[in-house]
Amino acid sequence: MEKEQEKNIENKIKRIDRKLEFQGVIVDFYTDYMQMPDGRVVKWDYISHRKGAAAVVPVMDDGKILMVHQYRNALDRMTIEIPAGARDDTKEDTKICAARELEEETGYRAGKLDFLISLRPTVAYDNEFIDVYVASKLQRGIRHLDQDEFIELEAVCLDDLCERIYAGEIQDGKTVAALMAYKNKYVNGAQK
Amino acid sequence: MEKEQEKNIENKIKRIDRKLEFQGVIVDFYTDYMQMPDGRVVKWDYISHRKGAAAVVPVMDDGKILMVHQYRNALDRMTIEIPAGARDDTKEDTKICAARELEEETGYRAGKLDFLISLRPTVAYDNEFIDVYVASKLQRGIRHLDQDEFIELEAVCLDDLCERIYAGEIQDGKTVAALMAYKNKYVNGAQK
Repeated sequence: MEKEQEKNIENKIKRIDRKLEFQGVIVDFYTDYMQMPDGRVVKWDYISHRKGAAAVVPVMDDGKILMVHQYRNALDRMTIEIPAGARDDTKEDTKICAARELEEETGYRAGKLDFLISLRPTVAYDNEFIDVYVASKLQRGIRHLDQDEFIELEAVCLDDLCERIYAGEIQDGKTVAALMAYKNKYVNGAQK
Repeated sequence: MEKEQEKNIENKIKRIDRKLEFQGVIVDFYTDYMQMPDGRVVKWDYISHRKGAAAVVPVMDDGKILMVHQYRNALDRMTIEIPAGARDDTKEDTKICAARELEEETGYRAGKLDFLISLRPTVAYDNEFIDVYVASKLQRGIRHLDQDEFIELEAVCLDDLCERIYAGEIQDGKTVAALMAYKNKYVNGAQK
């Protein structure tokens, strides 16, 4: 779409106020007051993630992907995910964050770390972003979990992970996007 | 990982209370009070999406993907996404929701609608789910946007979309996951 057309839509909808409703531990809740083209003002939700995050597809020398099993209170169950975590502060480079989280959660250091994709997990009402990197040439480092982190590791074949995604068993958005993007680029060589 | 190991982690962390902090338009904010294995009680954020959602990869007869351009207040800019929307109520089948949202947003009816993947966009603190379908054999139906929806359509080559994902230009989580999963399964035939 042309930039001009985009501007036409952007100009139709205007935010006239943003009110903080509740401050959480890692995210804050706001109400946005949006003026529609016909003059009506409507309320839209807005969740602000203060720090942004990074995630890693850690590829072992044998091609297996190092995954983390973790309890998630929002789902009230365990999930299987790629390693990820929030930045220490809003100035931290996401590549530094990715390297740090990988070592903290898995005990492996990345010999090589390449940008894969940038994600906005929930564009409808949340500003969080996650930059995803591919880690390879892994070397033993020092595992150091956060105080409230209880994580188990497992190295899994990429094909098994993809089958479990298509079976609806693995659902974590960043994990699905990252593994599928990794497979298309590195295994199928789809990137031009 | 074995189910027994998973149970061991789940049993380590226990939710002892959940308090509603704020009711939004489409999501609500709760504080979860979680008891850690050492007895400490910590607060974790929990966002509840009341309805769940569905999304569609609409494949035109010439292979192009029908995308929507839309203004998103959380990012304060336009995005390019696959068509998607919340269920009418918690009992609506996501396949029905997908067919409905496709016709409402694009004016096309799906002659064929196949399950692709299930997503949990933000497992760290949000229970929202999105079931994603592939729509093909598209036929002209009736476009009917919601009152506050301002959407422009564009049919784009899958390869172009993938390039823009790897360039970090297309970032919407469900869109990246869905297009990459579609490409692996339908174009590269990677599913076994």
